Amino acid sequence: METRLITLTTDFGHKDPFVGIMKGVIFGIHPQARIVDLTHGVAPQDIRGAALALAHAAPYFPPATVHVAVVDPGVGTERRPVLIEAEGNFFVGPDNGVLALAVEGKKIERVIELKNESYQLKPRSATFHGRDVFAPAAAYLSLGVPAAGFGPALENHARLQWPEPTRAEGEVRGEIIYIDNFGNLITNVRERDLESLPRERLTVTLADLTIRGLAKSYAGAAPDDYAALIDSWGLLEIACCNGRADRRSGADIGDPVHIRAA
Amino acid sequence: METRLITLTTDFGHKDPFVGIMKGVIFGIHPQARIVDLTHGVAPQDIRGAALALAHAAPYFPPATVHVAVVDPGVGTERRPVLIEAEGNFFVGPDNGVLALAVEGKKIERVIELKNESYQLKPRSATFHGRDVFAPAAAYLSLGVPAAGFGPALENHARLQWPEPTRAEGEVRGEIIYIDNFGNLITNVRERDLESLPRERLTVTLADLTIRGLAKSYAGAAPDDYAALIDSWGLLEIACCNGRADRRSGADIGDPVHIRAA
Amino acid sequence: METRLITLTTDFGHKDPFVGIMKGVIFGIHPQARIVDLTHGVAPQDIRGAALALAHAAPYFPPATVHVAVVDPGVGTERRPVLIEAEGNFFVGPDNGVLALAVEGKKIERVIELKNESYQLKPRSATFHGRDVFAPAAAYLSLGVPAAGFGPALENHARLQWPEPTRAEGEVRGEIIYIDNFGNLITNVRERDLESLPRERLTVTLADLTIRGLAKSYAGAAPDDYAALIDSWGLLEIACCNGRADRRSGADIGDPVHIRAA
Repeated sequence: METRLITLTTDFGHKDPFVGIMKGVIFGIHPQARIVDLTHGVAPQDIRGAALALAHAAPYFPPATVHVAVVDPGVGTERRPVLIEAEGNFFVGPDNGVLALAVEGKKIERVIELKNESYQLKPRSATFHGRDVFAPAAAYLSLGVPAAGFGPALENHARLQWPEPTRAEGEVRGEIIYIDNFGNLITNVRERDLESLPRERLTVTLADLTIRGLAKSYAGAAPDDYAALIDSWGLLEIACCNGRADRRSGADIGDPVHIRAA
Repeated sequence: METRLITLTTDFGHKDPFVGIMKGVIFGIHPQARIVDLTHGVAPQDIRGAALALAHAAPYFPPATVHVAVVDPGVGTERRPVLIEAEGNFFVGPDNGVLALAVEGKKIERVIELKNESYQLKPRSATFHGRDVFAPAAAYLSLGVPAAGFGPALENHARLQWPEPTRAEGEVRGEIIYIDNFGNLITNVRERDLESLPRERLTVTLADLTIRGLAKSYAGAAPDDYAALIDSWGLLEIACCNGRADRRSGADIGDPVHIRAA
Repeated sequence: METRLITLTTDFGHKDPFVGIMKGVIFGIHPQARIVDLTHGVAPQDIRGAALALAHAAPYFPPATVHVAVVDPGVGTERRPVLIEAEGNFFVGPDNGVLALAVEGKKIERVIELKNESYQLKPRSATFHGRDVFAPAAAYLSLGVPAAGFGPALENHARLQWPEPTRAEGEVRGEIIYIDNFGNLITNVRERDLESLPRERLTVTLADLTIRGLAKSYAGAAPDDYAALIDSWGLLEIACCNGRADRRSGADIGDPVHIRAA
C-alpha cells in the first residue's frame, strides 16, 4: 500500500533524542511509515524560521504529504494543536503561525483542532505535544485517516506576523529575514518586487555596504567580494563569495536592505 | 516481510561520515533495513547521556526493535561487545553501561557476548566496532537471526553508576543529570520521589536560585522567570521561560538540587 | 522492485531545510526511494573533506548505490555537473574533485555530463543544483535509468589536489588532512606507507610533540596522553586518550607530521 510521506520540522536540535522519540511514536502506530527530516536546526522558539523552511520545502514533496512542524513555546497552554488540509497536503502543528507561510495563497480545505484523544498518546504531557499529539496525528494521517476525524473544524488558523517589503517610486525597502548555514543574508524581497527596477543597474544597500547589479550565481562576484542575487527561494540574497556575508558585514536578522535604480 | 526496526544512538556527532558508514554496513547486509536515528549528538564519551536518551526513547518504539548504542571509549580493549534481549527488544553496544538504563527493571531474557565472527566485518578494526561489530549485529538481528547465535551467554551486563536522589523527612535531594537543547536543567528526581511533598507548596533550590511551586508547562512562569516542572520524561526539570536556564543560572551537570515543603 | 539506494553528502549543515528539499525532489520522482545521509557536516566549501568522507564510506554500501555529493562553490558557473559510473556504482555531483577520491583506482565505465534537461527541474536555478540537477539525477538513476541517458560522455573527470606523503630512508613525511568529531588528527599517511619502518619502534613527531610506538586502540595510551595509531580508515592518526588532540596540541589541517624509526 502506498502511504503518505511524513516530514518533520522542529527546533529540537541534534543533541537530544526528542526527534527520535517522535519517530518511535510514528513507527509504533505505522511500522511502514516513511519519514523525512526537513530540519531540526531551527533556532529555539523561532517560529518564523521554521515557517520559512517549511514553506520553501513543502512544494517539492509529492502530493498528500503530511508535514509536521513543532516549534511550540506555548505547549500546554491555550494555543490549539491543529491540522490544516490544503490542496491535498496536510500540515500539523501548534496553531502559532508556524504552518502559516506553507499554506499562504493555497486553497484551504479545512482547519481541524486536534482534539480527538483516540489519536493521541495517553497520558498526554503538557510539555511535549510533538510526541503525544503531533506524532500520533501524523502517523494516523499517513495511514489514511481522514482529516475530519481528528476533531472539530475551526474557522481560521493563526497567521504569522511578517514584514512585507515596501515599494516606492524607483526603490524597494526590505529587511533580512534569514541567515543560512553559509552566512548568506536572505531578505524578504521577492524577485517580483524588483520588476519595476532595471535588473542590471540596481544598487543594493545594507548599512554602509553598497552592491551594484545582481549576480547570476555565488561565483558571480570577485573572490571575497559581496554579491546580491536572486536565490533558490526566489528571494533577494546578499552573499560573500568564498566567505560568510553575515560575519563579514556584521548584519543580522531584521536589518534593513534598500534597493534602488542606480 | 516485516523486519525489525533498528535505532542508532552514538556520540559520533554530525561532522563525520561515521554514522553513514554504519548504515552502509547495515544496508549491505539487509538492503530493506529500516533505520531510525535516536541521536548522534551525545557528548563525546558521555555514556550516561546516551544511556538516558536510549532509556527514554526505547519505550515508544514498536516491539522487537533493535536498539544500537555506540559510546565506546574502551573500543579495542577488554570491554565486551554485547547484545541484551529484554521483553522482546534487543539492545546492542559495548558493555560499559550505555545499555543499562534502557533495560533497568525489565525482564532480561539473555545477555550475549558478540563473539561470533560470522556476524562481524573482517578484518575487524580495534577502533570502530560501530562499523565492524555493532552494525552487522544489528543488521542480522533485524533479519531475524536469533540472539543466541551471536555468541556465548553472559551472567550479567555492566551497570551504570547513577546518582540516586535521597529522601529525608520533608525534603528530597537530587542533582542535575542532563541539559537539553533548550538549556533546560533535568534532574534525577522523579515525579514519584516527590509524592510525600505538597505539590503546590514545594520549594526548589539550585544554588542561590529558589523556585516556589511546580508549573504545569514551560509557559507557566512569567516571561524570563524560572519554572520547575515535571517534564516529558517524568523528571523534575528547571526551565527558563523564553530563555536558557543553563546559561542564565550558570548551573551544570552534577550541581545539587534541593526540594522541600515550603 | 529492488531499487538503488541513494546516499547524500553535502556541506549544507543542519540549520536549513536544503537537504530536506533535495529529499522532497527525490521522493517526488521516486516515492519509494531509500535515502541515506552520509554527512551534511562538511565544512562550507570543503571539497576535500567531502571527498574523504565519500571515499571512506562508499565501499561499505551495497552494489549499484547512487552516491550524491554536493559541495559546490562553483554552482552556476562553467563547472560541469557529472555522473561517474565506476564498478557498478554511481557518483553524482559537481565536477570539482568532490567525487575523485571515491573513484580513484576504480575501473571507470563512463563519465557523463548531466545535460539532459528531461532529468532536471525546470526552471533550473543558478544557485542550487543539489535541488535542480543532482537530486533529480539521483532519483532517476535509483529508478534504473541508464547512465548514458543523462547526457554526453566526457573524456575525464576533475581530479582532487592531494598532498601525497613522501618517503625517504627510514622516514615518512605527511600532514594532517582531517580532524574528526572527537578531535582526532587524521593524516595522509597510510598503513602501507609505514611498511619499511619498525612498527613498535616508530617515532611520530608533530610540532614539539613526540609519540613513541603505535597504539592498538584509543585506550592504548595513558589517560590524557597522546597515542598514534592506524585508524578505521587505514590512516595514521594522532589521538588524545579521553581528550581532544586538536585542542590540546593546537594542531590544524595542513600541519606536517614526521614518522621515523626511533
